[in-house]
Amino acid sequence: MSAGELRVLPVHGMPEIHPGDVLADLIADRAELESGDVVVVTQKAVSKAEGRLVEVDPHDPRSHHGVVLSESVRVLRRRGDLVISETRHGFICANAGVDRSNVQDGQVALLPVDPDRSARRIRDGLRARSGLSLGVVVSDTFGRTWRRGLTDVAIGCAGVAAVVDLRGTLDKNGRELAVTEICVADEIAGAAELVMGKAHGIPAAVVRGVDPGWLREGSVLNEIVRPHREDLFR
Amino acid sequence: MSAGELRVLPVHGMPEIHPGDVLADLIADRAELESGDVVVVTQKAVSKAEGRLVEVDPHDPRSHHGVVLSESVRVLRRRGDLVISETRHGFICANAGVDRSNVQDGQVALLPVDPDRSARRIRDGLRARSGLSLGVVVSDTFGRTWRRGLTDVAIGCAGVAAVVDLRGTLDKNGRELAVTEICVADEIAGAAELVMGKAHGIPAAVVRGVDPGWLREGSVLNEIVRPHREDLFR
Repeated sequence: MSAGELRVLPVHGMPEIHPGDVLADLIADRAELESGDVVVVTQKAVSKAEGRLVEVDPHDPRSHHGVVLSESVRVLRRRGDLVISETRHGFICANAGVDRSNVQDGQVALLPVDPDRSARRIRDGLRARSGLSLGVVVSDTFGRTWRRGLTDVAIGCAGVAAVVDLRGTLDKNGRELAVTEICVADEIAGAAELVMGKAHGIPAAVVRGVDPGWLREGSVLNEIVRPHREDLFR
Repeated sequence: MSAGELRVLPVHGMPEIHPGDVLADLIADRAELESGDVVVVTQKAVSKAEGRLVEVDPHDPRSHHGVVLSESVRVLRRRGDLVISETRHGFICANAGVDRSNVQDGQVALLPVDPDRSARRIRDGLRARSGLSLGVVVSDTFGRTWRRGLTDVAIGCAGVAAVVDLRGTLDKNGRELAVTEICVADEIAGAAELVMGKAHGIPAAVVRGVDPGWLREGSVLNEIVRPHREDLFR
């Protein structure tokens, strides 16, 4: 790798994921990991492995809608079939993260109960298998308030910072940078999405070359989810 | 490169940018470009090259604030010094994108007048120099409504799609994917941020390995900026 380079490598050959599958083992069997790598795993794979699937009536849209409401603590907006709501984690997203794509007919996938813990479990499993110090990000595909198109963001992380606080560092003119809390976990998740592609069955990717200073214990819930008191738009 | 891999390469050795500088030449002199690469350039570099700098009184915060208001078509929220407003382009961001960091004391940088056009100009210059078919993304650092931390997003693009519409493609179970308009330009900008780093003087990066199907003529303004009629949160 050249100086400062970042590489994003899809993990090829992953099987269909089922409840009880050990994602760390499935990934470690297929990826040549190196110390300092950040492994990104999609929410869909994590939710399936953790058995976060519920039955719905595929012919009754109210069935899916009921699951969305039961996964929401607050509904912010509705438009047609779309519900924008807040989940128990504090994420604000479409349909509370409840998703029908790439699951069996008659089922929907829910978000993991604690995605940071899901990330830690995968990280611990990868470390046990490889002996390497690694980061893990669990990613999901969210919309944005004022920008069209979806991007992948982090819903959980372990062994890598969610937000890197550069406040107080100096810019090139020796002036303190005003706003430089960079959400590296979301940028890592988005970079991984570029190689995973939703319909191609690649639920994991390896991001190599992340700044070693970011490889600390991180938490999406503590670092990224914006507390209500800071919210200008709810 | 291995199958499906993405590489993100910082462009090292860029000089301080001044009004009138030709960014395409400065980049082409320093990067070994290949056909299909997407070159990401920061807004700050583009604004400086285009002379989008205005004088402010560094001792009077009202001076900076007045520029922010003159760059805004609508103020959405204020909290302390922070203004969230809509720019003439339709971007909703802090301080209308007006920024003091990494510019000379007594100056602030404004967003480019037409960032898609800025991207096209850089793309045309790179093509003239190299003969290669390339994409260009102009990136800036924006906050998000409900997530802490900033990420880099696209404010202009050329030669690469802003949003890739996968609606109508089938998931692994042959079911039509419901929401799969992926904003690849924002994910490319975020990936580049991971190697550029705000305080290290790297205003450009090369993203290699982007899906060739995305290398069409794109536009951030037409594809990403959400029209008022679709806005649920203004």
